[in-house]
Amino acid sequence: MPGIYKIIEVVGTSPVSFAEAVKSAVAEASDTVRHMEWFEVVNERGRIVDGRVEEFQVTVKIGFKIER
Amino acid sequence: MPGIYKIIEVVGTSPVSFAEAVKSAVAEASDTVRHMEWFEVVNERGRIVDGRVEEFQVTVKIGFKIER
Amino acid sequence: MPGIYKIIEVVGTSPVSFAEAVKSAVAEASDTVRHMEWFEVVNERGRIVDGRVEEFQVTVKIGFKIER
Amino acid sequence: MPGIYKIIEVVGTSPVSFAEAVKSAVAEASDTVRHMEWFEVVNERGRIVDGRVEEFQVTVKIGFKIER
Amino acid sequence: MPGIYKIIEVVGTSPVSFAEAVKSAVAEASDTVRHMEWFEVVNERGRIVDGRVEEFQVTVKIGFKIER
Amino acid sequence: MPGIYKIIEVVGTSPVSFAEAVKSAVAEASDTVRHMEWFEVVNERGRIVDGRVEEFQVTVKIGFKIER
Amino acid sequence: MPGIYKIIEVVGTSPVSFAEAVKSAVAEASDTVRHMEWFEVVNERGRIVDGRVEEFQVTVKIGFKIER
Amino acid sequence: MPGIYKIIEVVGTSPVSFAEAVKSAVAEASDTVRHMEWFEVVNERGRIVDGRVEEFQVTVKIGFKIER
Amino acid sequence: MPGIYKIIEVVGTSPVSFAEAVKSAVAEASDTVRHMEWFEVVNERGRIVDGRVEEFQVTVKIGFKIER
Amino acid sequence: MPGIYKIIEVVGTSPVSFAEAVKSAVAEASDTVRHMEWFEVVNERGRIVDGRVEEFQVTVKIGFKIER
Amino acid sequence: MPGIYKIIEVVGTSPVSFAEAVKSAVAEASDTVRHMEWFEVVNERGRIVDGRVEEFQVTVKIGFKIER
Amino acid sequence: MPGIYKIIEVVGTSPVSFAEAVKSAVAEASDTVRHMEWFEVVNERGRIVDGRVEEFQVTVKIGFKIER
Repeated sequence: MPGIYKIIEVVGTSPVSFAEAVKSAVAEASDTVRHMEWFEVVNERGRIVDGRVEEFQVTVKIGFKIER
Repeated sequence: MPGIYKIIEVVGTSPVSFAEAVKSAVAEASDTVRHMEWFEVVNERGRIVDGRVEEFQVTVKIGFKIER
Repeated sequence: MPGIYKIIEVVGTSPVSFAEAVKSAVAEASDTVRHMEWFEVVNERGRIVDGRVEEFQVTVKIGFKIER
Repeated sequence: MPGIYKIIEVVGTSPVSFAEAVKSAVAEASDTVRHMEWFEVVNERGRIVDGRVEEFQVTVKIGFKIER
Repeated sequence: MPGIYKIIEVVGTSPVSFAEAVKSAVAEASDTVRHMEWFEVVNERGRIVDGRVEEFQVTVKIGFKIER
Repeated sequence: MPGIYKIIEVVGTSPVSFAEAVKSAVAEASDTVRHMEWFEVVNERGRIVDGRVEEFQVTVKIGFKIER
Repeated sequence: MPGIYKIIEVVGTSPVSFAEAVKSAVAEASDTVRHMEWFEVVNERGRIVDGRVEEFQVTVKIGFKIER
Repeated sequence: MPGIYKIIEVVGTSPVSFAEAVKSAVAEASDTVRHMEWFEVVNERGRIVDGRVEEFQVTVKIGFKIER
Repeated sequence: MPGIYKIIEVVGTSPVSFAEAVKSAVAEASDTVRHMEWFEVVNERGRIVDGRVEEFQVTVKIGFKIER
Repeated sequence: MPGIYKIIEVVGTSPVSFAEAVKSAVAEASDTVRHMEWFEVVNERGRIVDGRVEEFQVTVKIGFKIER
Repeated sequence: MPGIYKIIEVVGTSPVSFAEAVKSAVAEASDTVRHMEWFEVVNERGRIVDGRVEEFQVTVKIGFKIER
Repeated sequence: MPGIYKIIEVVGTSPVSFAEAVKSAVAEASDTVRHMEWFEVVNERGRIVDGRVEEFQVTVKIGFKIER
C-alpha cells in the first residue's frame, strides 16, 4: 500500500448483527469518501429496549487513500 | 441519560454467531434485571470441539437504570 | 483443563460475517493441529472494495492441548 | 485493608462536573451498599445537546467490604 | 441512536478545570459541526509554568449524526 | 460451557502470597455464590508497613453459571 | 521542546475535585523539582467514608527539563 | 498551548525507516492542513515482499490549532 | 542478546500456585524447544470446583534463540 | 490517605516465586525510601536456563508519602 | 487478502536502528517461512552497555499465508 | 539478572530519528545514573513546525541495577 492514507472513525448501526452494522457504516461513508481500502473494529456496543437487543452499534476506523 | 446506572457483566453463548450470543445474554438478564439500556462487548471467545467451532461466547457489560 | 496448552494466532476471512471468518480459521487450522479447545478474538478488520465491505478478517488465538 | 472486598460498577451523572458525577454515583450507591471504601474512575463521557455539554457521565468502580 | 455517526477528536483547554476544558472543546466544535450527541474523554494532560498548573488540556472524541 | 454466566469482581487478601489471596477471595465468595467455574486476575497490589509487605491483594473476576 | 526530560509519577489529593488534586500534586512537587513543563493524568481514584466521597486522588506523570 | 486543537489520523509510508514514514505523512498532510503542532505514533506496521521488508507504515495522530 | 529470537505462547497449570504453573509450562516446552531464555506472564486465570480453586492457569510468552 | 505521594518503579527477583520477588523489591527499597504504603504489580517476567525457570522477576510500582 | 494466515512473533536486533532490527527479524524468518505479507511492531526495547545503547530489539508479529 | 533494579522514565529528542532520540536520552542519563542495563520505548511523539517534522521525541523507561 504505497502512498498516504487518512483514517476516519465512524459508527454504523443495525438491528440484525455486528457485520451488518459495519456494512452500514461503510456504505454510508462511501457517499462522501472515495478510495476506502480497509476498516478496523474499535468497539461493539448496542441499545436494549424492553429487555431485548434493539440495535447493534459498531465503531470502525476506515482507511482511505489520499488523492493527489 | 440523567440518573444513576449500574453495570453488570454477563457471558452469553450461542452455536450460531456473536450477535446471537449477545441476544442470549440480554434475554437471560431480563429475567431478573429491569430498565436495561445498553451493552458493550468486553471480549469474544468460543469453544472448539473436533476441529469445529461449537460455541460462540461473548462477555458483555450491560447498563441499567437504578429505580428509586 | 489440566495439562499444558499451546496458543497459536491465525487470521480467518469470510465475505459474510465475523463468525464465518472465525469458523474458517478454525477449520483450516484443524488440518494440521489437533486437540484444539478454545479461541479468543484478538481483532476484527476487513477489506473495502468500491465502497463496499468485501471481506471480514478476524485474528484469533487458538488454544490446543499438547499431546505427550 | 484486611478482609474480602467486592467491586461494583456504577455510572453517575451531573450537569456540572466529573467530580459531581462521581459524588452522585457514590451517594446513590450508599442507599443499598454499606462499608464502601474506595472508587476508581473507569471512563468519563457525556451528552451534548444543541452544541453544549448537557451532562457529565462518569463510570466508577466502587469497592466495599463484605460483612460476615 | 439509529443512523450513522462520525467521530472527531478535539483538544479543549481551560485554566480552571477538566470539565471547563471539555465544555470549551464542545463549544468550539459547535461552530462547524452540527448534531453532536456525545463525547468521551481520551486523555487529560496539562501545562505547568513556574511550578503551577497553567492549563488543563482534555482530548475528547465527539460523536455526531451524519445528515443525509 | 453452554448457558449464561455472570461475572463478579472481588478482592482477596493474604499475608503470604498472591495464590493464597485468590483462594481467600474464592472461598469467601462461595458463601453466597454457587456454581462458580473460573476466575481471572485483574490486578495484583499490596500494602506495605514498616518497609515490609504486610498484605497481598488480588482483584479477580469470578464467573458462575446462572441457575434457572 | 529540545533537550532531555525526566518524568516522575506523583499522587495528589483533594477533598474538592480532580483538578484541585492535580494542582496539589504539582504544587508539592515544585518544592523539590524545577523546570516542570507538563503533566498527564494516569488514573483517578478516591476514598469513601460513611457513604460519601471524602477524597479525590489523582496519579499524574510530571515532565521536567533536566538542567545541565 | 492555549486554544482549541483538532486531531487527525494519517498513515505515512516509506521504503527506508519509520522516521521517514512519519515525515512523509506530515509533509502530505501539510498540503491541506495548517498550524500542525505535534504528532503521536499510534502503531508501526509494514509490508513484506519476497522475504524482505518492502515498506514501513506508520499511523500517526497529528494535532493542529483551529483557526478562528 | 544479539541474534534473532522467536516467541511462543503456552499455558501451564498447577493445583498449587502461579509460580508452579509457570514452571510446568516451561518444563513441558523444554521437551521440544531449545535455547529458551525468558518468559513473560500474559494472564493468570484458574478453574473453580465446588467453591474452591482447583487449578491455577498461567499464560506465558516464552522467548528462545533461533539456531542457525 | 491525605497528603502527597510519590511512586517509584522497581524490579525485584527471586528463584522461588512472584511473591518473594515482590518482597525482595520492597525490602531493598526500604534501605533508601521511607513511609512506603502500597505496591502494584506492573508485569511478571523471568529468566530460563537449561529449560528451567531460574528466576522470577516482578516489576512493581511502590507508593510512599512525601515527608515535609 | 483472501485465504487463511498464520501470525508468528519474532524479535530482531540491530546495533543501528529499530528499522534495521525489523529487517533483521524478517530476513531471518524468511529462511524457514514463506509467503510472509506483513509485520506489526509489538514493542521496542534495547540493551545498554557502559552508558550507551548497544542494541535495538524490536518484537514484531509477522503474518504469512498458509499454503494448501 | 539477579539483584534489584530501579526503572526511571526519560524523554530524549532528536531532529533525525527515533533511534537517535533514544540514544540521546540514554547518553544524558548516563551522566547521573550508573549500571543501566536496558530500555523500553513507552511512546513516540514529535513536534511539527511549518508543516515539517522538527523533532522526534521518544519516552523510554530505563532499568539500572541498584548498587549496595
